[in-house]
Amino acid sequence: MNQIEWDDHIAVTDRGDGEFAAELHDGWVVGAGVNGGYLLATIGNALSRVAPGKPDPISVSAYYLSASRPGPATVSTRVVRDGGSIATLAAELTQGGDARITALATYGDLDRVPDDIRTTAKPPVMAPLEECVPSSMAPPEVLANAKLLGRFDMRFDPSCIGWAVGKPSGDGVISAWFRLNGERDPDPIELLMVLDALPPVTFDLGMPGWAPTLELTAHVRAKPAPGWLRVTHRTRNMAGGMFEEDCEVWDSADRLVAQSRQLARQPRP
Amino acid sequence: MNQIEWDDHIAVTDRGDGEFAAELHDGWVVGAGVNGGYLLATIGNALSRVAPGKPDPISVSAYYLSASRPGPATVSTRVVRDGGSIATLAAELTQGGDARITALATYGDLDRVPDDIRTTAKPPVMAPLEECVPSSMAPPEVLANAKLLGRFDMRFDPSCIGWAVGKPSGDGVISAWFRLNGERDPDPIELLMVLDALPPVTFDLGMPGWAPTLELTAHVRAKPAPGWLRVTHRTRNMAGGMFEEDCEVWDSADRLVAQSRQLARQPRP
Repeated sequence: MNQIEWDDHIAVTDRGDGEFAAELHDGWVVGAGVNGGYLLATIGNALSRVAPGKPDPISVSAYYLSASRPGPATVSTRVVRDGGSIATLAAELTQGGDARITALATYGDLDRVPDDIRTTAKPPVMAPLEECVPSSMAPPEVLANAKLLGRFDMRFDPSCIGWAVGKPSGDGVISAWFRLNGERDPDPIELLMVLDALPPVTFDLGMPGWAPTLELTAHVRAKPAPGWLRVTHRTRNMAGGMFEEDCEVWDSADRLVAQSRQLARQPRP
Repeated sequence: MNQIEWDDHIAVTDRGDGEFAAELHDGWVVGAGVNGGYLLATIGNALSRVAPGKPDPISVSAYYLSASRPGPATVSTRVVRDGGSIATLAAELTQGGDARITALATYGDLDRVPDDIRTTAKPPVMAPLEECVPSSMAPPEVLANAKLLGRFDMRFDPSCIGWAVGKPSGDGVISAWFRLNGERDPDPIELLMVLDALPPVTFDLGMPGWAPTLELTAHVRAKPAPGWLRVTHRTRNMAGGMFEEDCEVWDSADRLVAQSRQLARQPRP
């Protein structure tokens, strides 16, 4: 059943004492590891059970230590402070004793935040869904190397897909429509994955290749409305062998529901 | 001696086992607490001694748990992973057993990163230093409530200082020139403070008042050149009782040397 594929892949089993067992699915492999967004969502799913009445990620900062592999993993969690409307939490994802990710997070209840909105940011200017380029059109060798592309429907805005035919724009922007398999409607935990699902924005600078994340901080600002998401990646500061990648996720109601910034290593030629 | 004021204020004493003693100086008080950027720099100063050959902050993510007070504090540090050119570190700042801040960080050696620069970001458009408005011109009650303004020379760009006379621009931008007392030249640890030294960007939205930081992630991208820094704060997404504040710090050589994003609570009227 496609409808529950995602929920199955991020499922965790409570082992007590803040420890959760996960099974990293090989459908999320990209290059030499497992997609960092999927890992973040798996950690985020465990953390949603740790502080009573605070099921939603508001801020998650993850430091990536080593590449994860498909198979069993443990998410160890700890409540740093639980008071008032938010809880500060810590988590570590390990595999066979090797630390893969260490993270800090703020959790709360997004149904209980004030409903004022004074956002000045504008939704990304993107071509209609029908005119965008589905990732399923990628060459077979790309699809084989990025199995995660089989997990969702991702359609790139034509204005920033030149890199796919050897003509990157050089602007440092990639935008796409996004929806999980089975038309599963988005939720706050899924957004943690969506923030790191697109190809590295360095593709648009003519630098293909894997760009390992050092650190990624996600802010989930609202529960997303049902339907397609629009995702934009942007970089403005490539220097010292590193670049920042800013991501925005907009929902079908034109609301900026999640933002992230990551610091990643520049791909090696 | 002004020249060493800053170094004195962020000084830490190694107590062994990764623990450092600090003395939070009351010259950094603002409102009901101690400035979050100063606290971040104090933590950052302790972390610079933890991993041999890796003295410089590259990424620091701090989660603020409770307001700090002037006086003794302990910074407990831990090496999460030290390998290759970077180390991942953890730190906690406590006072009398109360946790104030918990943090994760990546440290390295900024003298040893590649010297390629492909930054597309442009320096902020700001009036010349002589035409900007010094924070020392603030009303006496403001200076009394924000003692940190006595620690540095901060000169606001006139285009975004309308809030000081009851006419905020509504753009969500504040820019200023910045230099520590005694014309002390900036370094990577100081940048951790500079990223959170300006008034909350919500002043420019007509919302004066303290905006408590939930989370702040700083990226230090290069060692700053000597001289004045230019600092810009911007927000684009105020919703759900929270806002993001993006900060850029540019050095005298027109280099984007540090970036941060924080998630803060909207000031209460």
